[in-house]
Amino acid sequence: MSQETTTYLADKFYTVRNQTLTLIEPLEQEDFVIQASSDVSPPKWHIAHTTWFFERMILQEYADTYQVFHPAYNYLFNSYYNSIDPYQPRHQRGMLSRPTVKDVIAYRKHVDQAVLTFLQEERDTSLQQKIEQLIEMGLQHEQQHQELILMDVKYNFFTNPLLPAYQTRQVERTETDHSLSLEFTRFEGGLVEIGHDGRGFAFDNESPVHKVWLEPFELGTRPVTNREFLAFIEAGGYEQSEYWLSDGFQVVKQQQWKAPLYWMKDQQGDWSIFTLNGVEPLQWDEPVCHVSFYEADAYSRWCGKRLPTEAEWEYVGRQVAQQGNFMEQGSFHPRSVSDADHAMHGMFGDVWEWTASAYAPYPKSRPLEGALGEYNAKFMCNQMVLRGGACVTPGNHIRATYRNFFPPDKRWQFSGFRLAGDL
Amino acid sequence: MSQETTTYLADKFYTVRNQTLTLIEPLEQEDFVIQASSDVSPPKWHIAHTTWFFERMILQEYADTYQVFHPAYNYLFNSYYNSIDPYQPRHQRGMLSRPTVKDVIAYRKHVDQAVLTFLQEERDTSLQQKIEQLIEMGLQHEQQHQELILMDVKYNFFTNPLLPAYQTRQVERTETDHSLSLEFTRFEGGLVEIGHDGRGFAFDNESPVHKVWLEPFELGTRPVTNREFLAFIEAGGYEQSEYWLSDGFQVVKQQQWKAPLYWMKDQQGDWSIFTLNGVEPLQWDEPVCHVSFYEADAYSRWCGKRLPTEAEWEYVGRQVAQQGNFMEQGSFHPRSVSDADHAMHGMFGDVWEWTASAYAPYPKSRPLEGALGEYNAKFMCNQMVLRGGACVTPGNHIRATYRNFFPPDKRWQFSGFRLAGDL
Amino acid sequence: MSQETTTYLADKFYTVRNQTLTLIEPLEQEDFVIQASSDVSPPKWHIAHTTWFFERMILQEYADTYQVFHPAYNYLFNSYYNSIDPYQPRHQRGMLSRPTVKDVIAYRKHVDQAVLTFLQEERDTSLQQKIEQLIEMGLQHEQQHQELILMDVKYNFFTNPLLPAYQTRQVERTETDHSLSLEFTRFEGGLVEIGHDGRGFAFDNESPVHKVWLEPFELGTRPVTNREFLAFIEAGGYEQSEYWLSDGFQVVKQQQWKAPLYWMKDQQGDWSIFTLNGVEPLQWDEPVCHVSFYEADAYSRWCGKRLPTEAEWEYVGRQVAQQGNFMEQGSFHPRSVSDADHAMHGMFGDVWEWTASAYAPYPKSRPLEGALGEYNAKFMCNQMVLRGGACVTPGNHIRATYRNFFPPDKRWQFSGFRLAGDL
Amino acid sequence: MSQETTTYLADKFYTVRNQTLTLIEPLEQEDFVIQASSDVSPPKWHIAHTTWFFERMILQEYADTYQVFHPAYNYLFNSYYNSIDPYQPRHQRGMLSRPTVKDVIAYRKHVDQAVLTFLQEERDTSLQQKIEQLIEMGLQHEQQHQELILMDVKYNFFTNPLLPAYQTRQVERTETDHSLSLEFTRFEGGLVEIGHDGRGFAFDNESPVHKVWLEPFELGTRPVTNREFLAFIEAGGYEQSEYWLSDGFQVVKQQQWKAPLYWMKDQQGDWSIFTLNGVEPLQWDEPVCHVSFYEADAYSRWCGKRLPTEAEWEYVGRQVAQQGNFMEQGSFHPRSVSDADHAMHGMFGDVWEWTASAYAPYPKSRPLEGALGEYNAKFMCNQMVLRGGACVTPGNHIRATYRNFFPPDKRWQFSGFRLAGDL
Repeated sequence: MSQETTTYLADKFYTVRNQTLTLIEPLEQEDFVIQASSDVSPPKWHIAHTTWFFERMILQEYADTYQVFHPAYNYLFNSYYNSIDPYQPRHQRGMLSRPTVKDVIAYRKHVDQAVLTFLQEERDTSLQQKIEQLIEMGLQHEQQHQELILMDVKYNFFTNPLLPAYQTRQVERTETDHSLSLEFTRFEGGLVEIGHDGRGFAFDNESPVHKVWLEPFELGTRPVTNREFLAFIEAGGYEQSEYWLSDGFQVVKQQQWKAPLYWMKDQQGDWSIFTLNGVEPLQWDEPVCHVSFYEADAYSRWCGKRLPTEAEWEYVGRQVAQQGNFMEQGSFHPRSVSDADHAMHGMFGDVWEWTASAYAPYPKSRPLEGALGEYNAKFMCNQMVLRGGACVTPGNHIRATYRNFFPPDKRWQFSGFRLAGDL
Repeated sequence: MSQETTTYLADKFYTVRNQTLTLIEPLEQEDFVIQASSDVSPPKWHIAHTTWFFERMILQEYADTYQVFHPAYNYLFNSYYNSIDPYQPRHQRGMLSRPTVKDVIAYRKHVDQAVLTFLQEERDTSLQQKIEQLIEMGLQHEQQHQELILMDVKYNFFTNPLLPAYQTRQVERTETDHSLSLEFTRFEGGLVEIGHDGRGFAFDNESPVHKVWLEPFELGTRPVTNREFLAFIEAGGYEQSEYWLSDGFQVVKQQQWKAPLYWMKDQQGDWSIFTLNGVEPLQWDEPVCHVSFYEADAYSRWCGKRLPTEAEWEYVGRQVAQQGNFMEQGSFHPRSVSDADHAMHGMFGDVWEWTASAYAPYPKSRPLEGALGEYNAKFMCNQMVLRGGACVTPGNHIRATYRNFFPPDKRWQFSGFRLAGDL
Repeated sequence: MSQETTTYLADKFYTVRNQTLTLIEPLEQEDFVIQASSDVSPPKWHIAHTTWFFERMILQEYADTYQVFHPAYNYLFNSYYNSIDPYQPRHQRGMLSRPTVKDVIAYRKHVDQAVLTFLQEERDTSLQQKIEQLIEMGLQHEQQHQELILMDVKYNFFTNPLLPAYQTRQVERTETDHSLSLEFTRFEGGLVEIGHDGRGFAFDNESPVHKVWLEPFELGTRPVTNREFLAFIEAGGYEQSEYWLSDGFQVVKQQQWKAPLYWMKDQQGDWSIFTLNGVEPLQWDEPVCHVSFYEADAYSRWCGKRLPTEAEWEYVGRQVAQQGNFMEQGSFHPRSVSDADHAMHGMFGDVWEWTASAYAPYPKSRPLEGALGEYNAKFMCNQMVLRGGACVTPGNHIRATYRNFFPPDKRWQFSGFRLAGDL
Repeated sequence: MSQETTTYLADKFYTVRNQTLTLIEPLEQEDFVIQASSDVSPPKWHIAHTTWFFERMILQEYADTYQVFHPAYNYLFNSYYNSIDPYQPRHQRGMLSRPTVKDVIAYRKHVDQAVLTFLQEERDTSLQQKIEQLIEMGLQHEQQHQELILMDVKYNFFTNPLLPAYQTRQVERTETDHSLSLEFTRFEGGLVEIGHDGRGFAFDNESPVHKVWLEPFELGTRPVTNREFLAFIEAGGYEQSEYWLSDGFQVVKQQQWKAPLYWMKDQQGDWSIFTLNGVEPLQWDEPVCHVSFYEADAYSRWCGKRLPTEAEWEYVGRQVAQQGNFMEQGSFHPRSVSDADHAMHGMFGDVWEWTASAYAPYPKSRPLEGALGEYNAKFMCNQMVLRGGACVTPGNHIRATYRNFFPPDKRWQFSGFRLAGDL
């Protein structure tokens, strides 16, 4: 690790931490407090928790003279690290009016200052390397929470009968006026390699590179659109058990699902959609978004296809340029696809894509040491993998090997899907 | 109704509405949003709901030119009036970050202005009388919510590990240094009258005056104290089913009750208590507070006594001066009792006193007409009556005939009790 | 207590215990095991528990040489006596296939033999008196469980899609072909006495006699009929919140109540009713049965009347002959009323009648000593009083002072109601 | 399909159907009715459901003159086939006292007779082949329920404080008196084939054969024993979150798990175990049984190993003789392992072995057509695969490719595990 790296990291630290502050600018003070379901967290909690991560994992471990900002914050803002200490139960994060937003911003400044100072201190190379890895980790973690802030604010606002908009739309929407054809590209498969090779940052769950045998398969050139998903709805897809996993159909009945989350049908039968830019007419050629794994899987079965495995997805994803509609665009909503779109459109950005793969450790994988071992590995059960990032994901946070994961019934994340098939 | 009445009401309106604003002064903006259990409401909701009451019950009904402040507020701030319209479910009041506190204060000003203007308008006497009754009702309602704000803030703050104080103590605490003797006064009973005679304001549930036969009884000259209740705890009272109603003992086990709400025992075995003035040492000669009906009933059985019926309480309460430690004192905490206290100490103020009476309609009672018929009558099941007001009750809101009511397992209200016995 | 009393009791013991066996004759062995909700108990449990009562309360306490039949039965068949020992949780009574029905019948014979032998033994008069009181108590208890067996079997069978009949009808049903007029009798009220005077057996909750002041009132000459209740249903009574207590309307919505329990509407809109004699056409002039307190209360409010208090009911009930349609008739279903019926028809038998009174201790009442103190007193909360017995109550078990009680949302008991009004 | 096949099938039909009757011989009539949790079913239901399978899937579909035994049984005894018709909710199977055991046995005889007659009828070869496949399927299904009957009776009896034994032990238990060494065999892995090749019967979820890449690995020569698992318990394994999946540790706390299901510790600290042969001392060298996936996974992590994937297990399992302790032995309990046991001991029989693999479709797999498509495929979510059969599995029902599956928190099945490791 050179001085160059240190400078790069200090810059990145400054940039990423400020990006978070930009994201919360449109919020009223009251918006920081609420938690409309136990899946989401109050924005105030995200702001403090990402700060706690730097304080607890770096400053408290390595900075001898660091003074803890407030002794109770370790309890309040630890997310789930049992090896560290007890913590505020997740579903009670929205009961806390104190510390106030102002307090939490002060906490943030205190820690930012301490991290930047600490980073510049002289120390031996291997320790400096360790610390820089942790700071990189903390920034990647912060970027995950940038996405979570947008997801959670969207959900919180949707539960409010006033349906407030997070922002006024920054980016024009375009809509095609005709049905897009859906095409499939064929792949030979065979013995391929997936997983992260260690160059550049990756999470522990992406390693190591390993071989996987793939049968020949085909993959849709673009995600499934609202127009296509509406056909499933209108064909009675939500009422017909034969398309659904048993657990999924039970959720459909219990939750009375009739459409993706955030779709709204008025009394004339017209559909609109709740977005971070407010309520808008549903655009038919946008990728369908905010569907659960169960819905993605049922749709696939209904139309005679299937979801790709994560190995299939990654095999193709490595061959595709990593461009797309990310957080930086500021739309926070998927774009419409058009006939003009190139092959394998939208694998990165727009919507996370559900895969058929349960989230599990890779062969010979090792979780990180210490408390960070709890970062990913302990969730490897009852979750499905999603790939490719979405319109709320920072663009430099994503890569072909990136594994996101959610339980199969969740849909407040920006999740869509792409069809696959056997050959 | 004379001009005098109108002026009196305008003054009272101004005073009471401002008292509410005084109560919320110590709160941070974030404090207005949270709802730590479905029993409590966010302060913001109280501020808006009491305003809605004037808007919906008076302005919308009688003020022809009144413009509704916001069409959605009727849904958001209706508490439980089914005959009016659907409303935001109670347990989801804490999910609303919008309208903001600022919005709600603006709503308040808008309605205050409209009410005061409307009150001064010329109209025929019977209509003016009707309107003045409704404004009186709205102010009594507002005073109930003043108490609720204090109860709810206390509960919300207690769930926060930081245990914030609502205010710094305004009133000195005194503590006696010895055990107080408990004495009982004897009453002959016989055929007595209870209920409200129609002079001055009363709620529908206090009328009409009616006869009740009382057997001879005795009533404790003061409420049960913390010192006395501690003896019950230390004698294993919470573990011994024989003192408890069957439903009550089930709650004790499920909720793992070991002491009144807000009592805290440290590792040295010392007791402290959470108050609106922060955490303080438990004072032994204060009336025990924040106990459920089940605990009051179990304590009574344990010491060979019983709770008074509401008729017994009212019969005695009518003979006692209506003075005590009310909201206006600003302590928001019960005072210690001492040997010097006069007979029948503390029947008004300090703590609400549980009675042995289930909340039920009085003979020949009639609920109010229209939507206000839902004010009290529909809760006359599964609740027990409390009498006398507490240290968070406005002093001019209480009277001997006043009937408060809570389910027997609730204890976030300022509830204590006084013993009675048969002769 | 004389030899005469002893002989009378031995006879009664023999008779009552055999009546229970007669009641279970129509059951298949499998019917003894099931428990379709936590409100009901398996018939096998009733058979064993009534036996346990004699074993535990009498033989184990007083019969020195008595050998307990099985050491685990005290755990399995204690209902709720915390002061005795822990017991099998109520909702898990239906998980026990062992002891078998055969085992439990053997237990019954063992205890019957021991009780009869023990009763004849020589002992001093006061002890003999004590024991005879306990045996009387045990038999009254057994009679309560006779009614419970019929209630519980009815409920268990109703949850079975085969809708099995407990018996083939023993008694002809008659139906009038016209609407009955509903008349009210007026009572002056005043200072009256209610409660049991100590002559003959009564439960602890019926004592002592005490004075109550009654305002003038009127009471319906017969219970409300199915025909009348149907009018409430057809007027949309179950959908209109204004007739309902707040808790009641919540239950209506949660449980999706549309009619009394056991009413069934076919696709042609015709009503039938599930009875212990199988499914039968609904007879319009039978008293409505299997309604909750909430439904009785809502109906009363809908038609501008109210339920009587228990004091009003008892005051009138004392003036009426204690005759009616009881368990001994073997119909196990209410009879139709007709114009020819005399004044104050059906106060005893047919259906239990809900009152407006919460179940509470009488002034100066004392619970029984020892374990039997738990018999009635600990349930005096969250329950409403019913009076008069039903078609499944043994005729010699009921009296004007008898207080039955159920939570306001329960309706598997044979409960109807009679209207009252103010004058 | 030849006459030979037909005769073979008729014989197998007779044998398997009678085996079921042999299994229920030790039961009392009452035992057939109960359902101690919604995971288990009453034995009566199993007896009827396996019969319904033949009636509904074969006789009603193909036997023109077949008369349905009872029209309501289709509702009562359909397990989960939505494509057929609605059915009795699973958790309400234990509420049915009717049809009686006698009725259900008569149903069984009626259908057995009809199947055997129908099987012998003349028809064209392809239809005969179809029917014979269905009968084979029905018998494999019956064998699965034979295991379920034993699992469910064990669980039902364990909830009874009397702890009844299903049978008196038929097979001697042996116990070694010393600790067994645990050894690992190493495998090269590479590109291997797993899945069923279509020779002989297999379920749809075992096909097709497909390639899988395996890294070099090692596999324990025997399952983990009680002795070894006790070391985990005594080391505080159940209290230390670092060994557990996040979901798993939550279950541990909620369910207060301290040991495998059926382990019982007395007040002296001695362990015994509940078995189908009654309560017995815990034998230390028996494979640990009745652990959840979470416990198996936590133990593996604790000792620095991991669970094998299902591909690793099958790769080794194909190389091992398919012998072991199965249902036919009549012990219904795992045997102790000893030093003398050969390499790869106990892969078949004794205990099902948890794998690290989530239950998912094989590449290019196809579910069965029609209603039987619901047999396996719709459960491919939130479940983990187990391999090898147990002491309650019929010996001719198991094979190396057989995939059993349960949710990761279940443990009433006879599930243990074997360690694996990376090389």
